[in-house]
Amino acid sequence: METDRRDQNVVLVVSAPSGGGKTSICRAFLKAYPDVYFSVSSTTRAPRPGEVDGRDYRFISREAFRKNIEQGEFLEWEENFGHYYGTPREEVEGKLRQGRDVLFDVDPRGGRRIRDYFPRGVFIFILPPSLEVLEERLSQRGSEDRDALKRRISRALDEIQEALWYDYVIFNEDLKTSIDAMKAVYVAEKIRVGRQEKRLSPFLRR
Amino acid sequence: METDRRDQNVVLVVSAPSGGGKTSICRAFLKAYPDVYFSVSSTTRAPRPGEVDGRDYRFISREAFRKNIEQGEFLEWEENFGHYYGTPREEVEGKLRQGRDVLFDVDPRGGRRIRDYFPRGVFIFILPPSLEVLEERLSQRGSEDRDALKRRISRALDEIQEALWYDYVIFNEDLKTSIDAMKAVYVAEKIRVGRQEKRLSPFLRR
Repeated sequence: METDRRDQNVVLVVSAPSGGGKTSICRAFLKAYPDVYFSVSSTTRAPRPGEVDGRDYRFISREAFRKNIEQGEFLEWEENFGHYYGTPREEVEGKLRQGRDVLFDVDPRGGRRIRDYFPRGVFIFILPPSLEVLEERLSQRGSEDRDALKRRISRALDEIQEALWYDYVIFNEDLKTSIDAMKAVYVAEKIRVGRQEKRLSPFLRR
Repeated sequence: METDRRDQNVVLVVSAPSGGGKTSICRAFLKAYPDVYFSVSSTTRAPRPGEVDGRDYRFISREAFRKNIEQGEFLEWEENFGHYYGTPREEVEGKLRQGRDVLFDVDPRGGRRIRDYFPRGVFIFILPPSLEVLEERLSQRGSEDRDALKRRISRALDEIQEALWYDYVIFNEDLKTSIDAMKAVYVAEKIRVGRQEKRLSPFLRR
């Protein structure tokens, strides 16, 4: 029964390479659709300026993170640049049981694991408008040397190869258009025939 | 080559049982997206009040219609209540070659044939908000007796069974929400990964 209901929910998964700009898009989306539950990941990395504990991430110790892993509390988790990131299973399952839609903001590796868990999920990949802009954004990130920048770019390109199995790609040229695109995906996915079986059923002959 | 390009276009197909209200939705949609080409069907039935020849339909004689059939000029055609309806092939193909998206407003039987022709089409079914409203709308159509009304309802239900293979279902509760839903489907389908291969390719490793 629960599985049936879960199939009617929209499970949105948004990924982007570093510098893709997905956080602003997700925030604006959640403002427009406050009923969508945002799955807050746990991480062992330090908060960045402006990040709020419990809203953007749950900032926890490596010890606490390992304990969560051992107790099977993550739906998926991975290590990135020496930091751990994980998706707590319990909250998400609870919200889905309540009939709420859920949004995940995860890197493409996390996206792959969420797809295993929610094969009917809706996967959105956010990209900079061009390769040049990607390189520009990555080079502004820090005062690294050329080699470090090259590695960053190469890593971003690795991640971008994953876009091919996503359902939608948003080229983030300007924020408003990108937010509208994400909203459109959500509105459209809500009215997919497979998610409206209940409402359709009085019209159907058996 | 042309086939490749055609796959990137959005081929929208909208169907509804009688009384579904699809014409107003399509008109408002086309006003918002004037670049989408509306495939004007040919028909042998008489124009209804407010219908414009060449905009809503091409009103042609039965003789002309039969000639078009013989010369293979229809992408699909069918008979409904003694009248013929057909989709001219040439215009649609031309517009697609120009890279334009195309909108079809056809009954579910026509939809099935267009699906054979454009398997990657995007199929939207429009329904009244409830079975009661459907019956209400159909009973307002004419001053028929109970049996004629029953046949109309039964026929509408036959058509509605086809909704199951459509991609999206819009329950037409109020016009604005329905138009927004159709626009959302279009915006979302435009950014499907399969339709953005060209823009994605600079990011891809070979």
